[in-house]
Amino acid sequence: MLLARVIGNVWSTKKKDEISALRLLFIQPLGKSLKPDGNVLVAADEVGAGFGELVIVTQGSPAMQAFNKDKLVPVDAVVVGIVDNLEMDDDVGGKKK
Amino acid sequence: MLLARVIGNVWSTKKKDEISALRLLFIQPLGKSLKPDGNVLVAADEVGAGFGELVIVTQGSPAMQAFNKDKLVPVDAVVVGIVDNLEMDDDVGGKKK
Amino acid sequence: MLLARVIGNVWSTKKKDEISALRLLFIQPLGKSLKPDGNVLVAADEVGAGFGELVIVTQGSPAMQAFNKDKLVPVDAVVVGIVDNLEMDDDVGGKKK
Amino acid sequence: MLLARVIGNVWSTKKKDEISALRLLFIQPLGKSLKPDGNVLVAADEVGAGFGELVIVTQGSPAMQAFNKDKLVPVDAVVVGIVDNLEMDDDVGGKKK
Amino acid sequence: MLLARVIGNVWSTKKKDEISALRLLFIQPLGKSLKPDGNVLVAADEVGAGFGELVIVTQGSPAMQAFNKDKLVPVDAVVVGIVDNLEMDDDVGGKKK
Repeated sequence: MLLARVIGNVWSTKKKDEISALRLLFIQPLGKSLKPDGNVLVAADEVGAGFGELVIVTQGSPAMQAFNKDKLVPVDAVVVGIVDNLEMDDDVGGKKK
Repeated sequence: MLLARVIGNVWSTKKKDEISALRLLFIQPLGKSLKPDGNVLVAADEVGAGFGELVIVTQGSPAMQAFNKDKLVPVDAVVVGIVDNLEMDDDVGGKKK
Repeated sequence: MLLARVIGNVWSTKKKDEISALRLLFIQPLGKSLKPDGNVLVAADEVGAGFGELVIVTQGSPAMQAFNKDKLVPVDAVVVGIVDNLEMDDDVGGKKK
Repeated sequence: MLLARVIGNVWSTKKKDEISALRLLFIQPLGKSLKPDGNVLVAADEVGAGFGELVIVTQGSPAMQAFNKDKLVPVDAVVVGIVDNLEMDDDVGGKKK
Repeated sequence: MLLARVIGNVWSTKKKDEISALRLLFIQPLGKSLKPDGNVLVAADEVGAGFGELVIVTQGSPAMQAFNKDKLVPVDAVVVGIVDNLEMDDDVGGKKK
């Protein structure tokens, strides 16, 4: 999954029926230093994430599993969690501090 | 999903039967400033998008769910919505203005 | 899907049975100016594409749908169409000329 | 799969029920020289990997197969193995030493 | 699929049962000139590829189809063929020599 920041809302009136009830967020993936890293994307929100919040985004086919399983939806990115805390090791080599 | 701009039409006579009825668009993904960002791609249109319109594009396996479910089609990108409005936060750090 | 150019043929004798009957092409993805853009890849040919032709390539799980549906094959890229014509807008901003 | 280093833990209280029991790790993909290469990501841990360990990460739809098959989960990256040893050829051309 | 070179072996004792019987290779994707191009990855071997050999690698969900179909495995990259010969056109524009 991606670690990302919610940077906006996306409104679309003319869209496929299957996604008409979804709230769409504009998302900026983040790198190790929590700085923007990677291309922005549009993700459906399934946890009530707000502007500026740090979130976890699932992409691809697994994203469809975040919705009602009776009907698969054409959605390839979804916010599945809001990050409370991130314990990170500054040493890229990986030794625990 | 990608936020993208419709920049062209793609015509193909000799193609797989499964995609023969689809309208194919040439698409430029956009970054945070709505400037071109990322490689162009060909996407099927399912919402009637026109030249220059800002659209939402679903990629990968979920794209197949935008079509008639009776028969999966070999399509990995589809326009699922036309963007009316985009509310964005200029501050990448994510604080709402 | 990718817009791409056929740049070669790939021959493999020792390969999985499931792909033994497929014709494999070496493919160069193209950007907006139809110049090479993105990493080359190997794709199965399902439309009879030749050297130098401009083609449409479906990737990932949807690629498997281009083949006989009775048995899924381990193929992640397939040529699904040959491009006849490409109507493109030079203005990336997206205004139709 | 990716060869990667575990560089942190990710905690999320508000998240989709389907992933509530998963341990989430912050992961840095590595290149040929085992130096960081590629964007960081969040992966579920299914093998008990610890800080700084060298791991194998499966992405995309196949990642869902690492969990209980009765119910697919919206997870697109999972640690499937801890690397004991890596025998590598310094010569990129590929001649065995 | 990717055209790639086998550059190493990856050993993992502590791993998911589903992949315990697989031979894992360290793989360097190649570009048009057969020079390294793109991030290295770990792929399961299903054709008996050796150090330095030029191979075809299937990624993503289709990779799972290279194994026994009775049980899907959490594997997102697999070597499906060894390349015997590569007929390539030096002219990127695509005219056959």
